[in-house]
Amino acid sequence: MLLKNNVENIKKLVKNDNVLTALEERYCYAQDSLNTKEKPHLPDIAIFVESAAEVQKILIFANKHKIPVVCRGAGTNMVGACTCPQGGIVLNFSKMNKILDFNAENMTMRVEPGVVLDDIKKLAETENLFYPPDPSNYKVSTIGGSIAQSSGGAMSFKYGTTKDYILSLTVILADGTLLKLGAGTIKDAVGYHLNQLIMGSEGTLAVVVEAELKLIPKPEAKRTIVGYFDNFDSAIEGVNNIVKERVFPATIDFMDNNSLRTVEQFSHCGLQTDKEALLIIDIDGFETSLDTQQDRIEKSLQKAGAASTGVVGEEIWTARRASFAATAQLAPDVVSDDIIVPRTSLAQMINGCKNICNKYGLQVCIVGHVGDGNIHPQIALNLENDDEFKNYIKAKSEMYEMALALGGTISSEHGVGISKISYIENTLDEQALEYMKQIKKLFDPNNILNPGKIFKI
Amino acid sequence: MLLKNNVENIKKLVKNDNVLTALEERYCYAQDSLNTKEKPHLPDIAIFVESAAEVQKILIFANKHKIPVVCRGAGTNMVGACTCPQGGIVLNFSKMNKILDFNAENMTMRVEPGVVLDDIKKLAETENLFYPPDPSNYKVSTIGGSIAQSSGGAMSFKYGTTKDYILSLTVILADGTLLKLGAGTIKDAVGYHLNQLIMGSEGTLAVVVEAELKLIPKPEAKRTIVGYFDNFDSAIEGVNNIVKERVFPATIDFMDNNSLRTVEQFSHCGLQTDKEALLIIDIDGFETSLDTQQDRIEKSLQKAGAASTGVVGEEIWTARRASFAATAQLAPDVVSDDIIVPRTSLAQMINGCKNICNKYGLQVCIVGHVGDGNIHPQIALNLENDDEFKNYIKAKSEMYEMALALGGTISSEHGVGISKISYIENTLDEQALEYMKQIKKLFDPNNILNPGKIFKI
Repeated sequence: MLLKNNVENIKKLVKNDNVLTALEERYCYAQDSLNTKEKPHLPDIAIFVESAAEVQKILIFANKHKIPVVCRGAGTNMVGACTCPQGGIVLNFSKMNKILDFNAENMTMRVEPGVVLDDIKKLAETENLFYPPDPSNYKVSTIGGSIAQSSGGAMSFKYGTTKDYILSLTVILADGTLLKLGAGTIKDAVGYHLNQLIMGSEGTLAVVVEAELKLIPKPEAKRTIVGYFDNFDSAIEGVNNIVKERVFPATIDFMDNNSLRTVEQFSHCGLQTDKEALLIIDIDGFETSLDTQQDRIEKSLQKAGAASTGVVGEEIWTARRASFAATAQLAPDVVSDDIIVPRTSLAQMINGCKNICNKYGLQVCIVGHVGDGNIHPQIALNLENDDEFKNYIKAKSEMYEMALALGGTISSEHGVGISKISYIENTLDEQALEYMKQIKKLFDPNNILNPGKIFKI
Repeated sequence: MLLKNNVENIKKLVKNDNVLTALEERYCYAQDSLNTKEKPHLPDIAIFVESAAEVQKILIFANKHKIPVVCRGAGTNMVGACTCPQGGIVLNFSKMNKILDFNAENMTMRVEPGVVLDDIKKLAETENLFYPPDPSNYKVSTIGGSIAQSSGGAMSFKYGTTKDYILSLTVILADGTLLKLGAGTIKDAVGYHLNQLIMGSEGTLAVVVEAELKLIPKPEAKRTIVGYFDNFDSAIEGVNNIVKERVFPATIDFMDNNSLRTVEQFSHCGLQTDKEALLIIDIDGFETSLDTQQDRIEKSLQKAGAASTGVVGEEIWTARRASFAATAQLAPDVVSDDIIVPRTSLAQMINGCKNICNKYGLQVCIVGHVGDGNIHPQIALNLENDDEFKNYIKAKSEMYEMALALGGTISSEHGVGISKISYIENTLDEQALEYMKQIKKLFDPNNILNPGKIFKI
C-alpha cells in the first residue's frame, strides 16, 4: 500500500482532476480482459497523464520511493498485462490520445500512446493509406497497448504485426530518462534496435510516450472466400495448395465445429453447423486480380476435398468475431487462449486441444489464424467451480506442453502478462531468459515498471 | 598481436586445415568492401569454422585471453564491419553454408550463417516461395552478413529488410553461452525480442550460428517501368502520385544525371543522358493486375511532368547496378555511401549532395531507392591524393549533417562499422547510445566481439 503522504506528493505532480484515489474509481483498474479467478488487483492511485513531462515526473518520484507503475490503454489485453498485482500507480493514457502528425507523402503518422487503432486506420484511409495491424478489439484498443503486447491480428499472415510498423519510439525509463529510439526513417542501420527491444516488453522496460508509425498504400479491393471441410487435415492441405498457387491472402482464419454451432445457435447467420472446419479467406489487391485469386483459391480448396466453397460478404467476419461472445453464453465465464505452432502441426494441435478439453469435461470453441498456425481456444467454464477450475488449469498446461512439443509457443500475439508467467521457464531457453532478466535490471533496477509480469525477477 | 602459444592452442580447437596464419593468407581478411585510406587491418589468425561447437570453443578461449573475434561472411559490407583493427581471430563462415531445413508448407528455411542469399532465393523459388531481401551483392553475400548488417536492398520499400524475415536465431555469446532466440513461429509474443536486438548489431553482441527464415509466396509476375525527368522535385512528385493511386511497387529506384552519363559512357545501353533523373519502378503481383498498375504509374509520372515513360526489360537493372563499377572508372577509387531521409526531403538531399561534392571538387554519381528516401552517393576520387581525401572527409561530414538536419540518418542499410563510428555521437540520442553501450557490456564484458565497431567503448 502506498503511504498517504506519497499520494499527496503525487497529486502535486499533475493536475488535481487527473488523480483518482477513491475505491470505486480504483476498481475500474482492477482487471483487464483476462478472465481470472484471482482477486482483483487494485492500484493505489490512478493518474490520467497528459504529457511526457508528467510521465517523467511521476516515474522519478515512483523510482525514488520504489512504487510500482503500470501503464494502461484500453485494457483489452487477454493476459492480465495491465493489472496491478503489487498495487502502486496506474497510468491511464486516454488523455494522451493525439495524432501529432500525419505525413501522407512520407507514409508516416506520429501518435501519442492513447490513440485508438481505429482512429489511426481511418485517418490513414483518407489518403489511401493503410495501417494493417488489426487485433480483434482495434475499434477500442490503443497503439500503446499494441506496442506493449506486440499485437498481431487476422491480417498478420500477409502484413505482419505491430513491430513491423514502428519506425521510432520515444520512451521514458524508470529513472525518468527520456530516450529517442529509431530515426523515424523507413530503414535505419545505426546502432542496436532498442525500439524492437521495447516492442512486446509489456511495459516492463520503459513507458512509451510517442511512436512514429509506418503506413503502406491501401489495397483498392477485397473479397472474402469461404470453404467448408469435413476435417482439419483437408482444410490445411487447402491452405498449402493456395500458397503453392502463389496466392498470398491477407487473412486465412478458421472456425471449428463447436464455434460454428455455438455462433449459429445465438446469431442464426446461416453457418453450416455439420462441418468440422470453416476457412475464411480474405484476398486483397487490385480489382483486376481478384477473379484470378478467387479462382485459384476455390480450386485449391476443392482439390483438398472442400465440401463447398464460395464468395461471401462482410457478415462472415461478424460471425467469426462473435465467437468469443457466443462462447461466453455457454457458461458463466470464458477464457480465450493464444497458441501458435508451425502450420504443418496445426491440425494435430487443434485435435489435441479438443481431446484435452474433452478429457477434462470442458467446452471449447476453437477459432484462429490458419495462415500463421495460430489458434485461440475459447474455453467456457465456471471459474467459481473449483473442480472445473482445476481441470481448466490442467488442460491449459497440457495444451501448452503440446504446443511446445510441436515446435510452437504459448503466446503468439497476446503476450505473457500474469496468466502465462508460470509457464515461461518451460517455454524460453534458460539462458535467454536469464539475459532478459539482466536487461530488465539494466533498464529498471528497482523493478517498478509493471512488476510481476512476463517473468519473476 | 597474438602470442605464439595462443596460436598453437587455438589450432588444437579445430581441424588443422581450417587454420590460416601465413601473412599472405591473412591479407585476404585485411579489408572488406569499404574503400579506405587506412592501412590494412590483418587478423592474427583466420579460422574456417565448421560447427556451433567449434565456435563455442574458440569463443571460450578468446574470452579467457581477451582476444578479439571478428566474423566474416563474403566481406561485401561497405563500412569496414568485418575488418580487424585490433587483430585477433577472424572466423570465416564459408564452410558453415548448409541449408539445414526447407519446409515449404511452413514457408520457413533453417540455414547456417555462411549460406549465400542467392542460394536461399533459388531454393525458395523451387516451391513458388520468396525470400525478398536483396542487397546488391546477394549473389555472393551471406545470410550471416545480412543479419549482422540488417541488410536492405532495392525491394525494401514493399518487402522490408532482413529483420522482417528472421523467425529465430541461435547465437553464441562471448563467454561461449549458446542462446536460442525466438520460437521460430510466424508470430511470437513470449518475452523480449532478443533476436531483434542481435539483428544489425554487426557481430558486436553475439555470433550467429543458425537462423530460421520466414518466406512468403512468390509473386507470379513482374514488370519494370521507367520515367525520365528534368528535375528531382517532379520525379518525387511522381512517386507520391503513384502511392495515392494505391499502387505499391516492389521497387522505386533512381539514377541521377551523372550516373546516367557515366554508365552510358561505359556500357552504351541507351540511357537518356540529357535527363536529370531516371526512375526505375518494378511492379509485381498477379499477371492480371500488371496492366492496371502500369497504367496508373505511367499516368502518375506524366502528371508530375515526366519527359517520357515506358516499359523496359531486365537490362535497365544491369545498367542501374553497373553504376558503382562505372563510377569506379572515373578515378582510382570510389566510395559508396548510404544516407536516408524522409521522402519529402529527398529532392533537397540529392541536390544538397551534389552541391557539397561540387564545392569540394569531387565527382559524384547518385543512385538510390526513392521509395525509402534512401540515396547512395558514389564518390570517385583518388584516396592517395591527400587534398582530395581531406575534401572527401569534409564533404562526407557535411552530407551527414544535412541528412540529420532533414530528419534522416547516416546509414539505412549498410551499418556503421568503422567508417561511420566517429559520427555516431551526433546521430544517436545520447542516452540511447549509453544504453547500447551498457547492453554491449552485458553481452560481451571483455569487448572481444568485433571491437572498435559501431561505437567506441
